[in-house]
Amino acid sequence: MNSRFRDLHHAGRPLLLPNAWDFATGAALAKAGFPAVGTTSLGVAAAAGKPDAAGGTRAETLALARALARLPVPVTVDIEGGFSERPEDVAGLVAELADHGIAGVNLEDGRADGSLAPLGHQVAVVRAVKDAAPGVFLNARTDTFWLASAEPDRAETLRRVRAYADAGADGVFVPAVADDADVRAVLDAVDVPLNVLFMPGRTDYARLAALGVHRVSTGSLLFREALRAAVAAALDVTGEGDGAPVPSYGDVQDLISE
Amino acid sequence: MNSRFRDLHHAGRPLLLPNAWDFATGAALAKAGFPAVGTTSLGVAAAAGKPDAAGGTRAETLALARALARLPVPVTVDIEGGFSERPEDVAGLVAELADHGIAGVNLEDGRADGSLAPLGHQVAVVRAVKDAAPGVFLNARTDTFWLASAEPDRAETLRRVRAYADAGADGVFVPAVADDADVRAVLDAVDVPLNVLFMPGRTDYARLAALGVHRVSTGSLLFREALRAAVAAALDVTGEGDGAPVPSYGDVQDLISE
Repeated sequence: MNSRFRDLHHAGRPLLLPNAWDFATGAALAKAGFPAVGTTSLGVAAAAGKPDAAGGTRAETLALARALARLPVPVTVDIEGGFSERPEDVAGLVAELADHGIAGVNLEDGRADGSLAPLGHQVAVVRAVKDAAPGVFLNARTDTFWLASAEPDRAETLRRVRAYADAGADGVFVPAVADDADVRAVLDAVDVPLNVLFMPGRTDYARLAALGVHRVSTGSLLFREALRAAVAAALDVTGEGDGAPVPSYGDVQDLISE
Repeated sequence: MNSRFRDLHHAGRPLLLPNAWDFATGAALAKAGFPAVGTTSLGVAAAAGKPDAAGGTRAETLALARALARLPVPVTVDIEGGFSERPEDVAGLVAELADHGIAGVNLEDGRADGSLAPLGHQVAVVRAVKDAAPGVFLNARTDTFWLASAEPDRAETLRRVRAYADAGADGVFVPAVADDADVRAVLDAVDVPLNVLFMPGRTDYARLAALGVHRVSTGSLLFREALRAAVAAALDVTGEGDGAPVPSYGDVQDLISE
């Protein structure tokens, strides 16, 4: 399963990785023909009524991974920052996921307070995970662009993706990278596959393919679309919702507490 | 909260009750203005990778109920058959839900094997639940129409809804009842509110309102629409899904195992 997932990053076009948040969405995406399925921590957290990227969804993430491992396609799991500051804890989680048959994980350096984990610490986590679960495709995500309040720091981005690749990461992920020059710079900086986030109106699958990007993932997009469709269908029953704004994920965040 | 929920069944038009399957959908439906939110056992089960109506989702149902109880609207929970053959177990579950602030439950007499619970047994369950949690709105569902392989048995339906109302049920629910004459017969048979399932193309909100139905719920419709929207959004990324059939809930059932 794991070499099969690895090979999907070198198929001559970007692996389009759709992100599920429960078993049903994962199963439907596999049935739709996607050769692999990922998860979205935002969707997993919101489904449980918890805030995203706050480290409080380890149990939900593990339960979902165990269920999705039954799918006939490789599954990669968004483990946020690993739900612990201790590299050995993160390594233990990934080893457990490997035991369940999970093919890959996403590990991010962004923290709940909007800061980035110190590079040395994050490198230690990457090393610990690869030591504990060498067969799991470790997609090391840097949030240099994602969390940037002003102009993203390209030099810091390149420093981080190089450090993660040198530490053994099997791929790197820079969500919110979009401009051709930035994408090219990351591609040139490392030899491992690059994952870019699909953002409607900002990144385009065909363009990312032309640039040589290896993986394109959907993040929370499918979750947001599903939520919108559910509410729209309910409003349609009486027809009174015509033209009314449909609440989005952003509108329900105040109902989500720690 | 509970009298508020009860009053919604007597507001001069049917209470349109949309059914959520996770916290996010429940929260978005509350934000959209629905005055109460229900749950769909099919959605809860599929999200967990388990079959519907097989009695294996007690823990997931309880966890969801606890999360949804935080919403600013009354919540009613689909507890299938109560996840036990023992009336005292079902009563204990509903009492626990009441402690968490849940306003209502749906309790069905259909069983996983397609049969109906013996009427005397189901009446005992209704009585036990009302004794243990008198403040919870107990919507007693009969699956006489839902599970009918041929012509539904109207006489048996009326016998059951009368028995459940006599045993203390606060409302009755006959999913799959659709024809005016059948709806009228049930309305005439009991003094408690009648819940009818919205089925696109078969039941219509305005028509049910004209007949005097008290509650219209959406069952698994929103879940199915959300699942479709998620997969469609993923297929849209490359544009290659144009015209391709989008897998539905029915297509993923073989991936759902006990």
